[in-house]
Amino acid sequence: MKDSRELTTIFSAYLEDYLRELPDDNLYTPVVYSLHSGGKRLRPVLLLVSATGYGAAVEEALPAALAIEIFHNFTLLHDDVMDNARIRRGKPSVYHKWNLNTAILSGDVMLIQAYELLTRLPAGCLNQLLPVFNTAAREVCEGQQADMDFENREQVSRDEYLQMIRRKTAALLAASLRMGAITGGADTEEQNTIYELGIRLGLAFQLQDDLLDTFGDEQRLGKKIGGDISENKKTMLYVLTYERADDADRKTLIEAYRTKPERPAEKILAVKSLFEKYDAHREVAAMVHQYSREATELLKALRLSGEAGQSLATYIDKLAQRDY
Amino acid sequence: MKDSRELTTIFSAYLEDYLRELPDDNLYTPVVYSLHSGGKRLRPVLLLVSATGYGAAVEEALPAALAIEIFHNFTLLHDDVMDNARIRRGKPSVYHKWNLNTAILSGDVMLIQAYELLTRLPAGCLNQLLPVFNTAAREVCEGQQADMDFENREQVSRDEYLQMIRRKTAALLAASLRMGAITGGADTEEQNTIYELGIRLGLAFQLQDDLLDTFGDEQRLGKKIGGDISENKKTMLYVLTYERADDADRKTLIEAYRTKPERPAEKILAVKSLFEKYDAHREVAAMVHQYSREATELLKALRLSGEAGQSLATYIDKLAQRDY
Repeated sequence: MKDSRELTTIFSAYLEDYLRELPDDNLYTPVVYSLHSGGKRLRPVLLLVSATGYGAAVEEALPAALAIEIFHNFTLLHDDVMDNARIRRGKPSVYHKWNLNTAILSGDVMLIQAYELLTRLPAGCLNQLLPVFNTAAREVCEGQQADMDFENREQVSRDEYLQMIRRKTAALLAASLRMGAITGGADTEEQNTIYELGIRLGLAFQLQDDLLDTFGDEQRLGKKIGGDISENKKTMLYVLTYERADDADRKTLIEAYRTKPERPAEKILAVKSLFEKYDAHREVAAMVHQYSREATELLKALRLSGEAGQSLATYIDKLAQRDY
Repeated sequence: MKDSRELTTIFSAYLEDYLRELPDDNLYTPVVYSLHSGGKRLRPVLLLVSATGYGAAVEEALPAALAIEIFHNFTLLHDDVMDNARIRRGKPSVYHKWNLNTAILSGDVMLIQAYELLTRLPAGCLNQLLPVFNTAAREVCEGQQADMDFENREQVSRDEYLQMIRRKTAALLAASLRMGAITGGADTEEQNTIYELGIRLGLAFQLQDDLLDTFGDEQRLGKKIGGDISENKKTMLYVLTYERADDADRKTLIEAYRTKPERPAEKILAVKSLFEKYDAHREVAAMVHQYSREATELLKALRLSGEAGQSLATYIDKLAQRDY
């Protein structure tokens, strides 16, 4: 039985082998660049933890793990175009380093590569895995669309926001855990439970991300805080503040989200103090804790063997309770 | 046994049923628009002709046929962004009617929908069909990249050009025929032969397209001729003329392909007369006939039942020998 650090090492070696086989041309060089740009390898390692926890050999689950990681990076290439983002993980985005056409086409081929990897799985797995992967992939697109739709609206309800991040962020985490369980031969009930755990984990993860983006420590995060505010992203902090604010403050909030000043420091401070005035940051933190608790409860019901249970418990703690 | 007209009707009804089930929102409305915009339904009908020719019931093959058609339309959404194309089949492109983000994201979800449809096939087909679909999908991306790479080069060889259109155009036609054969339970040798037929058909189709774009009749085609020349697209006509031209004419050709005049009529005429001077149009027409003949020869070797053989023969004639 391997712990999540060993699984990460095994995954990285598999990824490197895969990348070494790709042609050295204009289509695949950005693919290699994107997959070399780091990231936590969260989704593939969750998949491997789940797979080995249900008795699969790591090797059997590696193609599915890589499929998930390549899919995730495909979404980043296209998201960076849609968000006009120049920086990704501290390096120029593919869109910025190359151009629009490269970000689109190399992204497209990554999505296809993900599906090619699924055909490398043990016979019999594919019929079960493909629908799970497809559904998550479609939900990620639907979540991204909902996120963009929110940009043109003044008010977004809590439920709408939660629905959006459930699809945009949580669905792929949850599918990773379920795909691992399928590879390990877990029954449908186990699959459903670990999927639900993944949804809670994903919701906690995204809400914590929202918090950190506004209230995090720049040094510790390694990025500027206030990006969501300066980009007028309607996160749960906005949703709750909009809901609770008196007429004057709500008007201030709406007006602030209509502007995109070149130097956003003042706007960030003003919006942040509104969030604090209405205790939005505390409520979001409470939601994070609630979803983490639910994930921990679901974990207890699982019949995982070896260190998989402990690894998942650690992930729940680490992801949902990151410092700020 | 159904002829290709009946198969087209059945396919259209299946497509309409599918589209009716899609949500009426910002993500899927462009998908419906794109799939309602007509087109010849060439690839899905080829798939159905092949499937029924090998004994499949039409219904069994419809999901694969729709997967191919949605995939093809996904490539159009993204190609129109990459080519900055405002018009598609006489109507505004999704990129132009909506915007960049919509063309990217609705295109992405279409690619995923294609894979979802493949899971609706009869059990046992998926393991064989998915690799065929994946390979064709990847080759379409590789062909598109090669096409874009040519834009930055002065010289392209015949072989390079043929390799490019083999992947960008022929691979998907050939995969459609092979996927039909798989659904009908044809053996590997039959699959390989009908695939090669599809490659020849696709090459003839694309070369004929190149010819028509410069030498076609505007009235009959329903579009302006000379688009490839005004966009500096390096088609086989360019490749051959570049190869054969004397130094002075080659210089004229290269210079013309460095400009994009607002009113391209004069440039189109000048380049067209260079193509004619070096008989490029005749040689491309000869290539079209050669590939059609090869397709017809391959057709004779196939063990298709019913009207499928006749339908394919008609397609070879119609597609490769369209008037100009």
